[in-house]
Amino acid sequence: MKAIIVTIGDEILIGQILDTNSTWLASELHLLDIQVVKILSIQDTKEAIEHTLATASLEADLIITTGGLGATKDDITKKSIASFLGLEMYFDDDVYAHIDALYARYNRTLTETLKEQCYMPMGTQILKNTMGTAPGMLFHCGKCRIVSMPGVPYEMKWIFEHSLVPELIKTRSDVFLKHRTIRTIGMGETTIADKIEDITDNFPNNFCIAFLPSLGTVRLRISGRGKDDALLESQLQEYSERIATRLSDIVFGYGSQTLAEAIQQKYVAKSVTVGTAESCTGGNISRTITSAAGASTYYMGSIVAYDYKLKTSLLNVSEELLNKYGAVSEETVIAMVRGGLQLLQTDVVIAVSGIAGPGGGTPEKPVGTIWLACGDQNKIKTKKLQLSKNRDKNIIYTTNVALNMLRKYIDAE
Amino acid sequence: MKAIIVTIGDEILIGQILDTNSTWLASELHLLDIQVVKILSIQDTKEAIEHTLATASLEADLIITTGGLGATKDDITKKSIASFLGLEMYFDDDVYAHIDALYARYNRTLTETLKEQCYMPMGTQILKNTMGTAPGMLFHCGKCRIVSMPGVPYEMKWIFEHSLVPELIKTRSDVFLKHRTIRTIGMGETTIADKIEDITDNFPNNFCIAFLPSLGTVRLRISGRGKDDALLESQLQEYSERIATRLSDIVFGYGSQTLAEAIQQKYVAKSVTVGTAESCTGGNISRTITSAAGASTYYMGSIVAYDYKLKTSLLNVSEELLNKYGAVSEETVIAMVRGGLQLLQTDVVIAVSGIAGPGGGTPEKPVGTIWLACGDQNKIKTKKLQLSKNRDKNIIYTTNVALNMLRKYIDAE
Repeated sequence: MKAIIVTIGDEILIGQILDTNSTWLASELHLLDIQVVKILSIQDTKEAIEHTLATASLEADLIITTGGLGATKDDITKKSIASFLGLEMYFDDDVYAHIDALYARYNRTLTETLKEQCYMPMGTQILKNTMGTAPGMLFHCGKCRIVSMPGVPYEMKWIFEHSLVPELIKTRSDVFLKHRTIRTIGMGETTIADKIEDITDNFPNNFCIAFLPSLGTVRLRISGRGKDDALLESQLQEYSERIATRLSDIVFGYGSQTLAEAIQQKYVAKSVTVGTAESCTGGNISRTITSAAGASTYYMGSIVAYDYKLKTSLLNVSEELLNKYGAVSEETVIAMVRGGLQLLQTDVVIAVSGIAGPGGGTPEKPVGTIWLACGDQNKIKTKKLQLSKNRDKNIIYTTNVALNMLRKYIDAE
Repeated sequence: MKAIIVTIGDEILIGQILDTNSTWLASELHLLDIQVVKILSIQDTKEAIEHTLATASLEADLIITTGGLGATKDDITKKSIASFLGLEMYFDDDVYAHIDALYARYNRTLTETLKEQCYMPMGTQILKNTMGTAPGMLFHCGKCRIVSMPGVPYEMKWIFEHSLVPELIKTRSDVFLKHRTIRTIGMGETTIADKIEDITDNFPNNFCIAFLPSLGTVRLRISGRGKDDALLESQLQEYSERIATRLSDIVFGYGSQTLAEAIQQKYVAKSVTVGTAESCTGGNISRTITSAAGASTYYMGSIVAYDYKLKTSLLNVSEELLNKYGAVSEETVIAMVRGGLQLLQTDVVIAVSGIAGPGGGTPEKPVGTIWLACGDQNKIKTKKLQLSKNRDKNIIYTTNVALNMLRKYIDAE
């Protein structure tokens, strides 16, 4: 089955919001073996919607649209689909009852604007939405199915999972497409490609590899397509293992596993606790570590000593040392680790201090100068980064490097 | 000028990466008054690329493609564009010299794979890329211009800003499209729509409004289009002011200003310092506050007391109180504010403790129960949230509520 995802709304076209809905939908459809051949963002005009439905319905068996179903005046998707399919509108009593009950629960009264949402195109298959007022809709147009869902992410996800998927899995493809993703950190895309060239050059025709770099990490996606599910699985297994073995020192995980999840697994297994002492990353290392559910089993907490004085008063970095070497120095991050170990009472602490930018640099320590230290009571390793002037990028890249130092620490134990 | 943005690569179609490039490009083109009429993600096959160029070149004057220019084996954009335009390839000595110099600087040797990047379609206008090896390319196809840039965000952004924009601003449109964005927090989309309905109902035909909700915040985008730049500007000014006045208690900023930036402006103006004491948000409040450059002028730091014991040892929350009321309670967050004020030596502290999920709930305190407290030595306000089981969403929503409490605190001063 081929699918096209269509996001409707000017806000994406002028760059005001990121299209996270399409990414999520693409990943879910992929799991269902439904091939997404195109993702589109279009204007919320009747013409753009009708033109897109007309061309997309020739290229795909399934069109999933999101956006444009709210009750506010900028939303016209429903009317445009109805017009494209030549359907009249009617007042749906069930939809009204649902909205009414939802509002009663929150002690709010139903506004006239919201009653607009109860008008539905004739013959619509309603896709239930318990998370909000606008239901999803499923239409049949020849061999093609058209789905319309609200753009609010948690409503869209609920409708997809609970109301649409049961419809979609009634038909299945007989060709299998399988992927395996190997996640690495600490080596560039082309260096990795060269290192495994002899393996990828000898891939059979139905296999390919893609390299997906992002701020210090690279994902390797190995894909295979074929009619024999078992053969495909064993080939994928073989190639993945050969590549992972070759790259063993930089591989941190597989599939959708995050670096934080991979680290958590290792530290919990060895019963080693971790704390952080952050300055320029402003809590992002802590936030990233705790993005993994269950982090409290090994992660104790963080001192974000953003201010100069807190490095002394909280982390016990001496004023003398700070005056001599500066807050951004190897000596300071080592002292921050020592202070953190004492204060947080953990086995390991990672500390970072630097100039995230865009301002604040000096000739000796330009913007993007960042020092990290990671260790325990006996041994502390340090690392210096010289990054760009981009604040956001510097913070995320530094966080990745910090997590990689934590990974290497526990691997060496 | 009408533009279409095309992202090439299977990784987006299977939902492995978010298309942040298109959002950034759309926002930059918008600033240049270039109307993005469509954003597409397509497969990295010769057929998909050629088909898309053929149709898009009829709908737009400018096609900007990203992705598929790396040296690894999955990249075929350059060859497909050359094939579509019927151009032969040649070895470009300047591109070679650039890559060679770049590699010499990092003491790395040029691989055979990288030499592939030096082949260019005949007649290509090279768009310089000092950030990486693959240059951008500009092609002319009748009245339409086709641009190809690498998918690595910071390379793409550099090429766009330094090499492409100077080309684009040579021609300007004579119809003006203007937007103003009002940013709010603490009220739902439809309630806002009802509150300003009498204003938006009387908009002239060339004006419209869009509501963009996201986890507790709503952006209102007012758009106008017309030939008279000055008239458009004054109308936009008038409608924006009327709406902002009506919604004054929930408006925190305008345009691309973030909540963190808005708060920073207020606190710096009144010389009031802030600290945070976080538990379930794991550092995200601190990370969000410090995402604004210059945060160190008012923000001192955070105690992330993720572990139960650290609430006592660091924040001085008594064991008796924790045993009696639990870590997730009004009493605990008030004590966390008091402990934070003492430890961080700030004027104000915001504290949060809760169960972010997906596990860890009890019948009395289900997942999503979150307590916040914000205040100073004299007065502390508290707030309880009852959120969902979605960990990520809970952390971000709670962070927004925390920042809104900080905003209200300083507004009341």
